Amino acid sequence: MKAEILAVGTEILLGDIVNTNAQYIAKRLADLGISVYHQCVVGDNPERLLESYRLAFSRADLVITTGGLGPTKDDLTKEVTFEYFGKKSIVHEPSLKILKDHFRDLTRPMTKNNVKQTCFPVDALILPNNNGTAPGCIIEEDGKIVVLLPGPPREMKPMFEDAVAPYLQKFQQGILVSKVLRVIGVGESKAEEMIEDILDNQTNPTVAPYAKDGEMIFRITAKASSYDEGIKLMEPMETEIRSRLGNNIYGEGNTTLESAIGAMLICKKMTIATAESCTGGMIASRLINYPGISSVLLEGVVAYSNDAKISRLGVKAETLEKYGAVSSEVAAEMAQGIAKTAGVSIGISTTGIAGPGGGSEEKPVGLVYVGLCINGKVKTKMLKLSGDRQKIRERATMLLLDLVRRELL
Amino acid sequence: MKAEILAVGTEILLGDIVNTNAQYIAKRLADLGISVYHQCVVGDNPERLLESYRLAFSRADLVITTGGLGPTKDDLTKEVTFEYFGKKSIVHEPSLKILKDHFRDLTRPMTKNNVKQTCFPVDALILPNNNGTAPGCIIEEDGKIVVLLPGPPREMKPMFEDAVAPYLQKFQQGILVSKVLRVIGVGESKAEEMIEDILDNQTNPTVAPYAKDGEMIFRITAKASSYDEGIKLMEPMETEIRSRLGNNIYGEGNTTLESAIGAMLICKKMTIATAESCTGGMIASRLINYPGISSVLLEGVVAYSNDAKISRLGVKAETLEKYGAVSSEVAAEMAQGIAKTAGVSIGISTTGIAGPGGGSEEKPVGLVYVGLCINGKVKTKMLKLSGDRQKIRERATMLLLDLVRRELL
Repeated sequence: MKAEILAVGTEILLGDIVNTNAQYIAKRLADLGISVYHQCVVGDNPERLLESYRLAFSRADLVITTGGLGPTKDDLTKEVTFEYFGKKSIVHEPSLKILKDHFRDLTRPMTKNNVKQTCFPVDALILPNNNGTAPGCIIEEDGKIVVLLPGPPREMKPMFEDAVAPYLQKFQQGILVSKVLRVIGVGESKAEEMIEDILDNQTNPTVAPYAKDGEMIFRITAKASSYDEGIKLMEPMETEIRSRLGNNIYGEGNTTLESAIGAMLICKKMTIATAESCTGGMIASRLINYPGISSVLLEGVVAYSNDAKISRLGVKAETLEKYGAVSSEVAAEMAQGIAKTAGVSIGISTTGIAGPGGGSEEKPVGLVYVGLCINGKVKTKMLKLSGDRQKIRERATMLLLDLVRRELL
Repeated sequence: MKAEILAVGTEILLGDIVNTNAQYIAKRLADLGISVYHQCVVGDNPERLLESYRLAFSRADLVITTGGLGPTKDDLTKEVTFEYFGKKSIVHEPSLKILKDHFRDLTRPMTKNNVKQTCFPVDALILPNNNGTAPGCIIEEDGKIVVLLPGPPREMKPMFEDAVAPYLQKFQQGILVSKVLRVIGVGESKAEEMIEDILDNQTNPTVAPYAKDGEMIFRITAKASSYDEGIKLMEPMETEIRSRLGNNIYGEGNTTLESAIGAMLICKKMTIATAESCTGGMIASRLINYPGISSVLLEGVVAYSNDAKISRLGVKAETLEKYGAVSSEVAAEMAQGIAKTAGVSIGISTTGIAGPGGGSEEKPVGLVYVGLCINGKVKTKMLKLSGDRQKIRERATMLLLDLVRRELL
């Protein structure tokens, strides 16, 4: 079965709202094993909506629309849909009763406009709306199916779950089972090169790589008759990808880099503290995103000024003088200093030039030194990063956290 | 001029990501006076993409695509576009040089796949990408225009603003001049209510409110024959909006809350330091986004554990014992402690329960105390926030920074 998602609403075309409904429905159709090749948005315009139906049904069996079920003149999705299918509509008495009760409860008068919200063809399947005034409906005709859903996500989602998903189950041949592997430390093109032959020869399961916020995701998806069969189908491919990518894979599903690190720290009974200059709290803040971190992340220092580096972390004035604040030596003393003053197993540090000013020929914008002091042993690494101030700071955060992860492996 | 927005990416069809690009571009085209009647999404599939071009250009003069400019085999937007226009592509040497420099800086090998990102027809207008490896391009042919933009919003948006918006200006009759006012501390519906009559009676200039990341933006736009005329047209509306919103307006254009605060601190010769528990570095990190901050933000402490609150900030063990770490009293001592130990004019603090665990009936998830110590005088405020861990921390950060701003006014 092929489906198409059609959002109706001038407010989407004007960019006043984001079409999150399309993503929700797309995700749920993928879960149900229904293919979606097109998503479209069209305004509240009868001709263009009719034209969109003609196009959509020329390439799909199922069209799911959102929006345009309201009481105003702009809301014409139902009228145009019924016209497309050549159907007349009459008041659906049970829906009218619900609507009347609703307005009575609100002690608000029901307007004539609201009545049109309860008009449907006699053979339509009505989808009750427990969160608003507009019922949805499903019409089946000559092998074509249209599902009309309201636009507000808080009305659309429950209606989809309560009525549409169970209805669509009957068209399923098998289910889709998928698994996400999260990769860091190799670029998009490199990661893809490492599994190029797998990408070229995939059938079932399939694997798709995505780059996102400085990391990579590989999504493996199997079509199967049951969840267990899907898992089993994916196993050989997962094993092969894991053997190619090795330690670059840091987690599965919704794992984050900070949760991977947090879990290892807890497991190894190790504690950590941060000493940040250019990243200025970003590393601590990311680690603290992981709810379990409080038992292992004891503290952090944002030592932005030289004075703070000296007073809070015990960096030597001579070191700052001799090598400058942005140097391997200062990164090392910062990492040692925070490990010592916080009494933790791991101290980590950053010092660099995030720009846009402050760079020189010798020390350009993007130069960052990171330091790691693990059980008294210190390492530093020089990074040369590009991008704006925010991006340089984010990249430094990511790369240092990945270094910590690799040390913990 | 009619435009169509075409997102290319199987990940959107599968519902893995929300197509926020379409909203951004739609909004900006509306600002530019360009009509959009259709938005579409198509997968990384050459036939369907070609078909989408045929359809789009049968009803629009301008097609803006997002996505599919990456280095992998899945990324085929450029190849299909060039095929549609019957154009051959060759390496664009300036882009290749930038890409080579980028990989050299990263000390990572550039793969062969990356080279294809720099291939374009000789007559294409190349759009440099300062935030990623994929340049965009504009092709004009027989009155049809295609604009190819990268998929990641942080690459797409600056490219749109820096290159596409100025390019599209030439198709306009008159120019659009716009100004952004940034508002914090009032909700979306309240802010709209405050200027309801202006919204209802706007012609030229117009004003459009957007809610974003816990703040509001009012974009005033005038259609005029010159920049100066546009500015003059906007003046009365801006004055009126400013008189209604007052101190809730914290800046214009790309001003950020942190840059507004940073500028005031520098102007008043005041210094600041942070003591964060639940926000854990987020406040310091946001302040440090402002490049000029280094002369006034001296240091920060992430005092996540009780020990760190005592040793780094001088919070009294009795206070922690008597009132608990999440209390007005501890927030006050943290703010005083950081102000004193860092020797700054302003110390700010947060302590709260970001969840998902750790809440109780008396102190539920979302309860956050913030503290401000300005020239020795301490204030605290209790916040009751909703949302997930990340959102609670972000809201606390925002609200405390806004408190600091209002104190500095």
